[in-house]
Amino acid sequence: MTGRQARHPLFGQMSRRSMLAGAAAGVVAPMAATALGGGRAAAAVRDRSTPSVRGETKRVTLYAEELPGGLYGYGLEPGKATIPGPVLELWEGDTLEIDLVNNTDRRLSIHPHGVEYDTESDGSPLNDSFNEPGETRTYVWRTRPQSQGPDGFWLPGSAGYWHYHDHALGSDHGTEGIAKGLYGALVVRREGDLLPDRQFTIVFNDMTINNKVAPDLPVLVADLGERVEFIAIGHGSNFHTFHLHAHRWADNRTGYLMGPDDRSRIIDNRDLNPGDSFGFQVIAGDGVGPGAWMYHCHVQSHSETGMNGVFLVRNADGSMPEGAQEAIDRYRQHGGGGH
Amino acid sequence: MTGRQARHPLFGQMSRRSMLAGAAAGVVAPMAATALGGGRAAAAVRDRSTPSVRGETKRVTLYAEELPGGLYGYGLEPGKATIPGPVLELWEGDTLEIDLVNNTDRRLSIHPHGVEYDTESDGSPLNDSFNEPGETRTYVWRTRPQSQGPDGFWLPGSAGYWHYHDHALGSDHGTEGIAKGLYGALVVRREGDLLPDRQFTIVFNDMTINNKVAPDLPVLVADLGERVEFIAIGHGSNFHTFHLHAHRWADNRTGYLMGPDDRSRIIDNRDLNPGDSFGFQVIAGDGVGPGAWMYHCHVQSHSETGMNGVFLVRNADGSMPEGAQEAIDRYRQHGGGGH
Amino acid sequence: MTGRQARHPLFGQMSRRSMLAGAAAGVVAPMAATALGGGRAAAAVRDRSTPSVRGETKRVTLYAEELPGGLYGYGLEPGKATIPGPVLELWEGDTLEIDLVNNTDRRLSIHPHGVEYDTESDGSPLNDSFNEPGETRTYVWRTRPQSQGPDGFWLPGSAGYWHYHDHALGSDHGTEGIAKGLYGALVVRREGDLLPDRQFTIVFNDMTINNKVAPDLPVLVADLGERVEFIAIGHGSNFHTFHLHAHRWADNRTGYLMGPDDRSRIIDNRDLNPGDSFGFQVIAGDGVGPGAWMYHCHVQSHSETGMNGVFLVRNADGSMPEGAQEAIDRYRQHGGGGH
Repeated sequence: MTGRQARHPLFGQMSRRSMLAGAAAGVVAPMAATALGGGRAAAAVRDRSTPSVRGETKRVTLYAEELPGGLYGYGLEPGKATIPGPVLELWEGDTLEIDLVNNTDRRLSIHPHGVEYDTESDGSPLNDSFNEPGETRTYVWRTRPQSQGPDGFWLPGSAGYWHYHDHALGSDHGTEGIAKGLYGALVVRREGDLLPDRQFTIVFNDMTINNKVAPDLPVLVADLGERVEFIAIGHGSNFHTFHLHAHRWADNRTGYLMGPDDRSRIIDNRDLNPGDSFGFQVIAGDGVGPGAWMYHCHVQSHSETGMNGVFLVRNADGSMPEGAQEAIDRYRQHGGGGH
Repeated sequence: MTGRQARHPLFGQMSRRSMLAGAAAGVVAPMAATALGGGRAAAAVRDRSTPSVRGETKRVTLYAEELPGGLYGYGLEPGKATIPGPVLELWEGDTLEIDLVNNTDRRLSIHPHGVEYDTESDGSPLNDSFNEPGETRTYVWRTRPQSQGPDGFWLPGSAGYWHYHDHALGSDHGTEGIAKGLYGALVVRREGDLLPDRQFTIVFNDMTINNKVAPDLPVLVADLGERVEFIAIGHGSNFHTFHLHAHRWADNRTGYLMGPDDRSRIIDNRDLNPGDSFGFQVIAGDGVGPGAWMYHCHVQSHSETGMNGVFLVRNADGSMPEGAQEAIDRYRQHGGGGH
Repeated sequence: MTGRQARHPLFGQMSRRSMLAGAAAGVVAPMAATALGGGRAAAAVRDRSTPSVRGETKRVTLYAEELPGGLYGYGLEPGKATIPGPVLELWEGDTLEIDLVNNTDRRLSIHPHGVEYDTESDGSPLNDSFNEPGETRTYVWRTRPQSQGPDGFWLPGSAGYWHYHDHALGSDHGTEGIAKGLYGALVVRREGDLLPDRQFTIVFNDMTINNKVAPDLPVLVADLGERVEFIAIGHGSNFHTFHLHAHRWADNRTGYLMGPDDRSRIIDNRDLNPGDSFGFQVIAGDGVGPGAWMYHCHVQSHSETGMNGVFLVRNADGSMPEGAQEAIDRYRQHGGGGH
């Protein structure tokens, strides 16, 4: 085990977040994803993927807590809950045991997409699977590679850009818990998958992004040429479409071309409706150069009312590109809205 | 022709439905799909697919009738209309001739997706293709495998999880007819496609599922290890997303992996908007065990107001798994809603 | 350079539009797409695709102008703005330099999807990239084939059915500009792609199609057996689904099967939400014969209120098929709506 693993065995986003306090005001500059699950450190440029150690069982404690403004969040330490919660990452074959500590006075739970669990770990009141106020409960999620089924046909593996969320706060569907911040990304990687230098989770939740609206969203920062992973999740009761300026990606499992014969459609705009999720990787500024690039819901009334933010691609040496600060200032001034 | 064929030449769902009267109250246990189109009986575990007999012409009579509550339905016999209507199944190459008997006092029609038809079988008032009250009219639908076109390029085959619906009741678009129940699934299979043990049609129609809302939806029942086919259809004027707990599938034509090299994205949540349809097959309880698993629209306000139901995976021997009856009782009590 | 190129170097749709004045009233019959980008004339039936001349730089002047009814449009000549604007077509590897002349008294811009551009060509006020009233500004869009990136992995090419739109009129998001008509199709083709005989751009923009509603939409016309390309774009603040009667297509980059092993899902209905776009090619009337075929938004309330039109497939010799004029008359009479 490396020191990185000891600190954050599973959670890339958490390790990045620990840097945020020292970031320049108004510009959140996450560090490289150094602990992307299962003890795999950030890979060098020429060695981005690491063979999976299948069957590893990981254990983590999650704390559900109240946040200012009547919000809720999941965190890896008491008093450190965030919206969205930490990115949970696994390799196909891993098992994750979560001890969920409910530090709130509300019933709540955690329900995952994509992975396997018994009814006791469903996170649904239907299956009596939730935490009463103050209660700690263990949820077990399993994953596996694709394999041949009993009739000779192939069963799908677990790899995907998934997500987790509350399913019990306020009702049997977790509508209130989700609306108030109880959600996060769950990534299951397949052997050979590329690991990114940066990672951002973007949740279109009702009429917000990560329960914020412009101009209050943190700027997402990367350096020219870095491999950046976006994990996009939809929640709530509205329909959305996610658009990123000046970057495009493959509409497949990984979000990048798997080789020269990969015929996946290339897109820069995608539906992002409740319960759906996808991820993709881009080379920051590839073909377009550094600068402040918008990402936003392309539903016009949603973009207008604050569902937009800035992806800042700095110069390769980390310095600010010409015009970028002015763009960020404009964003901060009127949220990318009316002029 | 077997006896099964004689009874229900095309319609798997109908043969299952004939069992419903004898099912335990509150738990609908459909029998295996014994007559999945074209004389193919339910296949054994090791011989699930049957070569297509291409070019077969099938003839069926459908009855459009009024149902209690101001609803309408299609049925294979007078007085037996259901919502959704019977599953119509074909193999690529088959032709289906439908004699539609309009036993109502409203103008109506039948319009299919995915298959081929002349303007007279369009089912649209635009083409003067509908049944007046009391009228019987023949609609002809054709299918075919993919083939090379006149310029050497490949033309798509007809295989897919399609659907049919009214296009004339109340207006030239069939909005009222659809809203009141005139819709059903249409499956066109390709040679080699797997046949399921169970089959369920789930239509997200406005704010209902199959024109019902929780807790009034029948429980969908399968036994552990059975191959279960879901056919999902969207209708009406709302957007929806379909989510099934604890099971995932391939986002491709068949809904299962076609082999180890099939790179299809694996999902457990999918947009299901008006006019869209998809199907998939899962092994009931695979990797997660038996139990009562929710399926629901993941648009939170829709789930809350009744767009949710239960997929019951019994033990392999058909007995009730621990906790499942309690879960169903909870569902019946408050529809999976507030607590 | 051929005479065709000299007239319309990039814009198939424009050359067709120049024919519209002479078309029969109520039936718009565009000519074959004779100038589909980069000097490639309409291909013969057996030689539809032409090798790309990579790296070509093309220059065009676009005029943004006010139109009757408070609308706006882009055009290739002063006084000739249309809604949607001209189809811009490129081959992967081409660069397009656009001199946008703003002949209006409003701030506006042009923002593309899918292609590459520096911040100055972003078209967003965030990047100070727009035209003041009366101003001319140059926007540069670049494209490229897929290639291996610095880490050995493949970067996506530019080919796709994309679109362009205003991003500055009325607000920093161009909501008013888009609502009033400032949008069009952008097609980037890959070497070997098939060229169509006919091409139609269909934009679901708020509750309109191309800012019109039935029965005022022009009839789309092709002859039996012609290869017809549909470019579908979503805009505004509503969700939509596009459905075409009696024709189906492949849900992939090109919208047609790339060969017998292409496993793409075949569809005839597809989500078309704001910022999204797709294209497909069909053989007009293939397997179904000539006639008047509906296309419409399948969201029932949208179809009812005018989001529907007619795709007229004439006989192979260009004559009217039996019953088609009656169908068009019905459409003109009540827009495909109530009877």
